[in-house]
Amino acid sequence: MARIAVVAGDGIGPEVVGQARKVLDAVLPGIEATEYDLGAARWHRTGEVLPDSVLDELAGHDAILLGAVGDPTVPPGVLERGLLLKLRFAFDQYVNLRPSRLWPGVTSPLAAVKPGEVDLVVVREGTEGLYAGAGGSLHRGTPAEVATEESLNTRHGVERVIRDAFARAGRRERRKVTLVHKTNVLTHAGSLWSRAFAEVAAEHPDVTTEYQHVDAAAMFLVTNPSRYDVVVTDNLFGDILTDIAAAVTGGIGLAASGCINPEGRYPSMFEPVHGSAPDIAGKGVADPVAAVLSAALLLDQLGHAEAAARVGAAVAAELAGRTPGAPVRTEEVGDRLAAHAVA
Amino acid sequence: MARIAVVAGDGIGPEVVGQARKVLDAVLPGIEATEYDLGAARWHRTGEVLPDSVLDELAGHDAILLGAVGDPTVPPGVLERGLLLKLRFAFDQYVNLRPSRLWPGVTSPLAAVKPGEVDLVVVREGTEGLYAGAGGSLHRGTPAEVATEESLNTRHGVERVIRDAFARAGRRERRKVTLVHKTNVLTHAGSLWSRAFAEVAAEHPDVTTEYQHVDAAAMFLVTNPSRYDVVVTDNLFGDILTDIAAAVTGGIGLAASGCINPEGRYPSMFEPVHGSAPDIAGKGVADPVAAVLSAALLLDQLGHAEAAARVGAAVAAELAGRTPGAPVRTEEVGDRLAAHAVA
Ligand SMILES: CC(C)[C@H](C(=O)O)[C@@H](O)C(=O)O
Ligand SMILES: CC(C)[C@H](C(=O)O)[C@@H](O)C(=O)O
Repeated sequence: MARIAVVAGDGIGPEVVGQARKVLDAVLPGIEATEYDLGAARWHRTGEVLPDSVLDELAGHDAILLGAVGDPTVPPGVLERGLLLKLRFAFDQYVNLRPSRLWPGVTSPLAAVKPGEVDLVVVREGTEGLYAGAGGSLHRGTPAEVATEESLNTRHGVERVIRDAFARAGRRERRKVTLVHKTNVLTHAGSLWSRAFAEVAAEHPDVTTEYQHVDAAAMFLVTNPSRYDVVVTDNLFGDILTDIAAAVTGGIGLAASGCINPEGRYPSMFEPVHGSAPDIAGKGVADPVAAVLSAALLLDQLGHAEAAARVGAAVAAELAGRTPGAPVRTEEVGDRLAAHAVA
Repeated sequence: MARIAVVAGDGIGPEVVGQARKVLDAVLPGIEATEYDLGAARWHRTGEVLPDSVLDELAGHDAILLGAVGDPTVPPGVLERGLLLKLRFAFDQYVNLRPSRLWPGVTSPLAAVKPGEVDLVVVREGTEGLYAGAGGSLHRGTPAEVATEESLNTRHGVERVIRDAFARAGRRERRKVTLVHKTNVLTHAGSLWSRAFAEVAAEHPDVTTEYQHVDAAAMFLVTNPSRYDVVVTDNLFGDILTDIAAAVTGGIGLAASGCINPEGRYPSMFEPVHGSAPDIAGKGVADPVAAVLSAALLLDQLGHAEAAARVGAAVAAELAGRTPGAPVRTEEVGDRLAAHAVA
């Protein structure tokens, strides 16, 4: 039976993760879940972010379900670098998977887009690029200060995520992969990405390919999001593009993600894209759909495709039944989703 | 009388620049314009991108009006690094100014946004960051290849563009500046930007400030673009955000930009954000509005605020009179704008 680690985290994290667990327990009874107290609250209390012993324990699980970590009083970077990115890097979660679908019942802010028309997945590289933590500063706090951030890209890292994108595209109906980069300015990394992409593409004659600069892709996600099927891109571009994709498909409250180590050498991690939203925490009004969809990605990754599909169907029914603008009650949504997923 | 250098460039560049010059000549008779043959065509013919002698000649002008350079057969980076970025850096054009307005008569792809509701300007840093050209690769073409791109940020460069943003905000109605960065991941550069921002903000108690991560800003530009007044950000984030801003305000066909050296030590450069659009080049159907609005920014920068305002009014009348979806005739639009701007 699957053993998962649960990091509910801060703010609305525990509320939405509670519903995700409810749904998981419903569709796959007997999951063994262990809770880990990590995030802003623990940092405030103990000064600890992610002790090595906890990292070791997490490594022993099949997957990690994460709610949200952070609050505005923690200095920027402490939990991001020390916890979220630490896990993504330590567990070699090089596929940061972010599907975006415009579900029936959900209104896009885009006037011309109808439900069903947008169904894309961004395969965001998760272990390289500007997220590597390579950078520094000199003469800090003086007029002579200089600060650098370095994007590190390896053939190894680039090729493996591109391969994953092509494999996913091959299993989808439209079989199309768009590479997004900024090859005209970031010529060194751009050339590496372009060449690796062209070589992997040559092995997949059945998959259509295109290339777009990141600025153009950001624009097309607004003017014509339905043109995308699978998008593969680097860590930072993926961060930005997936928030746009979330926005045009009804908002970050519905956006799920998986930080995946496809080989299963390390646990993969599943988390809603939204943050801890301290302003609405504890009120029972956070939408748990993103967390529940993240749990569906978890099920899929652990080989429970049928259970994942039942969760997807429950979400579809939930969203189709919503009245636009009506308030969400976190617990009630969780109850409905769990009930529907087992029915 | 103003002496401007004109780089019409490739594709639709000459067509749209032709209209911009028509309008300039109408509102400010006697402008001395010298044409420079630069871009893909010259590169194909001679292998030259930007000879030093031409750079020296350009330096002797009051401003540069640029159409668009590039075509799909030029390798990525050649004209971008060798011409566009070369000019931005050589002429220390550190304020890359990109206003976005939803003009009456223009339909936003966003259902909820009405004309007049969006009126923002992005002050994009133009001479630093990932555009510095710092990067390289090792073991190219082998499985061991590594490629880097480095973002270089100086207190000097960051502070001056933030100062410009606050000065602009002080002259606007809402007086608000949003800093956009990714301080939670790019902690070194992020800290430099945040501290410089806080210090300049302290000198402007009349200006409201906020901070957003770039992923959140990309999302809010879609869900609530009217919240922005002045946005200040780094070179790459500005590249992406301005394309989103253009998309939500009716498209890149209307987006103007100025690469400005505010002190006037070097010429500033004005260019539509769109590219050379080879697919529609020579057909007389390119929308010259972005080029004409870029010419208005040029007029403003050279101290002809009244003439700039007349061009703005002509554009407003033109756009208000358009039938959505009706084709554009480049020459006719130019004629109407010129006639209206002098009336
Ligand atoms: C919190 C932050 C480190 C993270 C990222 O930039 O990857 C978040 O924005 C995300 O998209 O998961
Ligand atoms: C062509 C390219 C170098 C340029 C940039 O990235 O700045 C363009 O996208 C722009 O926004 O002016």
